[in-house]
Amino acid sequence: MRPSGRALDQLREVRITRHYTKHAEGSVLVEFGDTKVICTASVETSVPPFLRGKGQGWVTAEYGMLPRSTGSRMIREAAKGKQQGRTVEISRLIGRSLRAAVDLKALGENTIAIDCDVIQADGGTRTAAITGACVALVDAMSWLKKNGKVKGEPLKQMIAAVSVGIYKGESVLDLDYLEDSDAETDMNVIMTANGGFVEVQGTAEGNTFTRDELNAMLALAEKGINELSQKQIDALNS
Amino acid sequence: MRPSGRALDQLREVRITRHYTKHAEGSVLVEFGDTKVICTASVETSVPPFLRGKGQGWVTAEYGMLPRSTGSRMIREAAKGKQQGRTVEISRLIGRSLRAAVDLKALGENTIAIDCDVIQADGGTRTAAITGACVALVDAMSWLKKNGKVKGEPLKQMIAAVSVGIYKGESVLDLDYLEDSDAETDMNVIMTANGGFVEVQGTAEGNTFTRDELNAMLALAEKGINELSQKQIDALNS
Amino acid sequence: MRPSGRALDQLREVRITRHYTKHAEGSVLVEFGDTKVICTASVETSVPPFLRGKGQGWVTAEYGMLPRSTGSRMIREAAKGKQQGRTVEISRLIGRSLRAAVDLKALGENTIAIDCDVIQADGGTRTAAITGACVALVDAMSWLKKNGKVKGEPLKQMIAAVSVGIYKGESVLDLDYLEDSDAETDMNVIMTANGGFVEVQGTAEGNTFTRDELNAMLALAEKGINELSQKQIDALNS
Amino acid sequence: MRPSGRALDQLREVRITRHYTKHAEGSVLVEFGDTKVICTASVETSVPPFLRGKGQGWVTAEYGMLPRSTGSRMIREAAKGKQQGRTVEISRLIGRSLRAAVDLKALGENTIAIDCDVIQADGGTRTAAITGACVALVDAMSWLKKNGKVKGEPLKQMIAAVSVGIYKGESVLDLDYLEDSDAETDMNVIMTANGGFVEVQGTAEGNTFTRDELNAMLALAEKGINELSQKQIDALNS
Amino acid sequence: MRPSGRALDQLREVRITRHYTKHAEGSVLVEFGDTKVICTASVETSVPPFLRGKGQGWVTAEYGMLPRSTGSRMIREAAKGKQQGRTVEISRLIGRSLRAAVDLKALGENTIAIDCDVIQADGGTRTAAITGACVALVDAMSWLKKNGKVKGEPLKQMIAAVSVGIYKGESVLDLDYLEDSDAETDMNVIMTANGGFVEVQGTAEGNTFTRDELNAMLALAEKGINELSQKQIDALNS
Amino acid sequence: MRPSGRALDQLREVRITRHYTKHAEGSVLVEFGDTKVICTASVETSVPPFLRGKGQGWVTAEYGMLPRSTGSRMIREAAKGKQQGRTVEISRLIGRSLRAAVDLKALGENTIAIDCDVIQADGGTRTAAITGACVALVDAMSWLKKNGKVKGEPLKQMIAAVSVGIYKGESVLDLDYLEDSDAETDMNVIMTANGGFVEVQGTAEGNTFTRDELNAMLALAEKGINELSQKQIDALNS
Repeated sequence: MRPSGRALDQLREVRITRHYTKHAEGSVLVEFGDTKVICTASVETSVPPFLRGKGQGWVTAEYGMLPRSTGSRMIREAAKGKQQGRTVEISRLIGRSLRAAVDLKALGENTIAIDCDVIQADGGTRTAAITGACVALVDAMSWLKKNGKVKGEPLKQMIAAVSVGIYKGESVLDLDYLEDSDAETDMNVIMTANGGFVEVQGTAEGNTFTRDELNAMLALAEKGINELSQKQIDALNS
Repeated sequence: MRPSGRALDQLREVRITRHYTKHAEGSVLVEFGDTKVICTASVETSVPPFLRGKGQGWVTAEYGMLPRSTGSRMIREAAKGKQQGRTVEISRLIGRSLRAAVDLKALGENTIAIDCDVIQADGGTRTAAITGACVALVDAMSWLKKNGKVKGEPLKQMIAAVSVGIYKGESVLDLDYLEDSDAETDMNVIMTANGGFVEVQGTAEGNTFTRDELNAMLALAEKGINELSQKQIDALNS
Repeated sequence: MRPSGRALDQLREVRITRHYTKHAEGSVLVEFGDTKVICTASVETSVPPFLRGKGQGWVTAEYGMLPRSTGSRMIREAAKGKQQGRTVEISRLIGRSLRAAVDLKALGENTIAIDCDVIQADGGTRTAAITGACVALVDAMSWLKKNGKVKGEPLKQMIAAVSVGIYKGESVLDLDYLEDSDAETDMNVIMTANGGFVEVQGTAEGNTFTRDELNAMLALAEKGINELSQKQIDALNS
Repeated sequence: MRPSGRALDQLREVRITRHYTKHAEGSVLVEFGDTKVICTASVETSVPPFLRGKGQGWVTAEYGMLPRSTGSRMIREAAKGKQQGRTVEISRLIGRSLRAAVDLKALGENTIAIDCDVIQADGGTRTAAITGACVALVDAMSWLKKNGKVKGEPLKQMIAAVSVGIYKGESVLDLDYLEDSDAETDMNVIMTANGGFVEVQGTAEGNTFTRDELNAMLALAEKGINELSQKQIDALNS
Repeated sequence: MRPSGRALDQLREVRITRHYTKHAEGSVLVEFGDTKVICTASVETSVPPFLRGKGQGWVTAEYGMLPRSTGSRMIREAAKGKQQGRTVEISRLIGRSLRAAVDLKALGENTIAIDCDVIQADGGTRTAAITGACVALVDAMSWLKKNGKVKGEPLKQMIAAVSVGIYKGESVLDLDYLEDSDAETDMNVIMTANGGFVEVQGTAEGNTFTRDELNAMLALAEKGINELSQKQIDALNS
Repeated sequence: MRPSGRALDQLREVRITRHYTKHAEGSVLVEFGDTKVICTASVETSVPPFLRGKGQGWVTAEYGMLPRSTGSRMIREAAKGKQQGRTVEISRLIGRSLRAAVDLKALGENTIAIDCDVIQADGGTRTAAITGACVALVDAMSWLKKNGKVKGEPLKQMIAAVSVGIYKGESVLDLDYLEDSDAETDMNVIMTANGGFVEVQGTAEGNTFTRDELNAMLALAEKGINELSQKQIDALNS
């Protein structure tokens, strides 16, 4: 029933490639099927002004799409001089979620700047970005520890993200673009590896959704997060 | 246990004042306790370029805060030349939610522009804004009908919004600023008067939240929405 | 002869409501008939960079209109990323005028930031704003004195503002929107309570004006300022 | 008593050079002593969108200062991406004043764009700009008539502008920078050649000013405008 | 003598991968050693306003760097709201150069928008971008022909680009970052496959350069362009 | 054969007027025929943040055109809030070139800010700007030495700039606007007084150019630079 032929509770093929570019302390190419995002984590050994002298660190994130990562070319935000509302909203979501993975006190007065740049989009770019960025974040924290800039363990817990939705009346996991543009409800779920909720954002696109539908979607999301968490661990162990 | 002395499932005093300013087709002052938002609905008898000739209307929304609506003065976004990410995110949420209330085909080639301006903030400004704006929207649609610009009924269903959260380990309804700044989890729930979900946005601030906590918060939200829907109806009938 | 039926030298009904919002050190709702402006005065216990270490304070002001404070909706300046020339011009006028009310040396290294936000416009928004803001300014200075942040008396003199003009060949006081859009000459006069001129801005809209007309307008302005000054004193004493 | 040794009612040496640059339909270098402004009037045979089809023309103006036209270098507004409030205010004043010189109906659907660029500043740049721009405007209107683009006479009346002020307790005419930075009151007066007032803007810088002082300044301004009008006529006849 | 151990006239390893992303009509990953740039060519079947109705097409280009494509993270231009001068300059260079490859009349009223996004930088990003973009451009023109949107042959000639410079007193070909940051002279040369010059930009960084040095650099550039042209042909034939 | 009747290797009449405006430490009006540029050099006794404490100075440059310096009025960049790409590119070229004239160590922690403002354009504005700015720069450095702010000699060498091109198949020197808009190749050459190359930028506009044509253009440029260097020396000696 799904355009891709996948089962309702089946993720797309997920690939997480570490050390994708050479300069960043953490650099990951994450692929959820045809959705491809470069996630880098850059260490800065200072904190933004509002945190100076407070003995804690910060994690910030920015999201962007290459102009032709999509079916029709989008305007280049840097040339226009303004980010779209959607871009701002996703950047904030990524940063907020990843901060849930980190013990900011243990991070000390260091900042990790996450950049998620979509080079090819096919639905679910924000969930792929968060899932990949968490791996880049872990690599950046390892770099900090190896270089003696952090003493304790700044990683509190791994997080991963997946989309679920109601498509043609059925709850489905990890929507691709064809499903996403036609879904009745779209929900992004961000969870820790051990099952805690970090963020839940569900939006009715046409009709409203019921409590039962919400529960069915959350069950799918939990299954997807389990599998994504394992992919993250595999990548970090390789 | 709550700073305000309210019961866990108790809304703040809610007041909805219609015809608050004289120029707009719909103009509402909505108060959730000390949170006060002016919501206006302005009719434009045209649609944005991307909808021209498609025989449907549009609803758009913008949100702002007066610089000293908060405890310490914020920079004026117009003077800075840039809206904060939070402002953009809330504007998008309001517009998306209110479009769920409207049959855009029945609206014809008209646009209703919603402006929500916070004159005093004490937590829950976005949920107050959506709840008040929906009343202003109804007034604007009545104006369209009365003036013969719309033939059918563009109102699909009333919507309302409320915040819920986990505060000191308890699920609470309609958080004020003191609770909001200290909550472990904060969730905004937007529903129709007859119980359908339009949008659910839950965010863990410190710890993650569990499925049980999510359910408890949703139950509180449903109760709150019921009461807010009644307030909206009372205001429209007065 | 006036659309409102007022005498040529008659002000609109003026109301000055103090403590209008709860966060600001000074907060006033000023109404000149249907023109309604929220004026807040926010204390910052520091000065802009160009004044640091000079042992004096500063007063700054910003003006804005809610998008639907007017008959047809204006673009939201924050969303456009740019203030209109008119907005900039009025903000500068308000700040310059209010500085004439203050002994900046006695204010010490404190800044008072004035925000004037028009929630409903019916002509004369800048003069209403100045008249109301001066009351908010006095409240903010009282706060500074009560909290021991200022020792001497930073208030030099109260100021008030009123518009005068030539409408259908007659000099009239305090023009409303209908008169303003049809006036031959429009003049804004800002004076101290004891009759000194702070600013005079007269503009011929269609025909030029003569010295006699200028004198007639100034006489009306003096009468209006007298009455407005009394309204300010009454508000401060209430 | 004046730093320049001038009499209280004495203008600086005024020079008006027409055809200063070769491309513009009107191009004037105006000098009020050491203040030098290039004023060009550019004809566009169309009108802004808000005037299309109304059978009338428009006059618009922009003002700028070269970064090192002043004693210390100012930031280049084009590089900063934002005009200062003062720039915006003066641009609006110049445009408004010059429109008083023109019969917009007789101008037809043509726009004259005035650019006033200060290449050397020594006080009174806005009054010099208006005085010079009016001559450039007349040349542009002559061009329109000569090229058959305008049939009637779009020139209603010549205007000129001069500053007056209270300096060391005395009313003085045409303040230079040394006087301007030390004046108690500063007033810009724009009048027609036959004595009508177009705009009066008087600002108390330290102390307020009295009705008598206002009258004394206006008398000086009238004398100055008379002389400037003659200079304009001489330039146009040469 | 070169940090990389290359011969003075030796290019880095060059790889050109077509069909790199799936949405664009032309999509190439070009690698000059560790410098990696994604070049996409997007077809739009219209032209910019200044060309409408002139029966010709257009080629435009934009360049960007991912924030962490470099050794230390750069600010994200989209977030800052402004492109750096260097970005603007390179975008203009790429567009101008590629237009030399195209018969704009034969292209008809179509636009090809080139996007060059650097995902990893190690010197020579602009020359790699031009070399890769030309291949993407050819693919986009093939798409236009195959889809019947262009009848004739819009490709005039292939172009390629390479950097040359004076490094430690020697002329070298295709500088990497270590050489580039230490070079005395840096020159970018853009040529057609058959040896015509499209653009030559040579800049002395410390000392000036002589006519002989210029000639030596141009000879190296010709050799490099020959090899790059062959790489382009090989890629197009694969 | 040239529209101006000049010989192929003939410069336009060049005039360099020092002390053109009174405030700047160096102020030059440079004229290449009808191209007229005001070049000022402003001394700031500090350096940009990235150079603080490094014991060296800086030279920066900005370029602008008055809106009606050209045949049709251009938009004012300050009003638009954005500089054109061409403006940015030329500003960078001027700054880079002039830094080649200066021993930044000998300059000490001082900055010289160059402003080149075109008041009338007829082709070759950037080369005129560089040639004039170098004279203003020398005057500013003399000011620094005379005022004891610099001890050694910060002037390394004078530089000058000229354009050359292929026009109707012939190499020509110092193209005016008529030639420039019709040239097959356009090249800007910046050299030191003793014949070293600082920057060479050659661009094919329609056809590509050959090595022989490049050589012919460079020979013309050398002749032109010789003459311009002499004009600079004459101006500095006058």
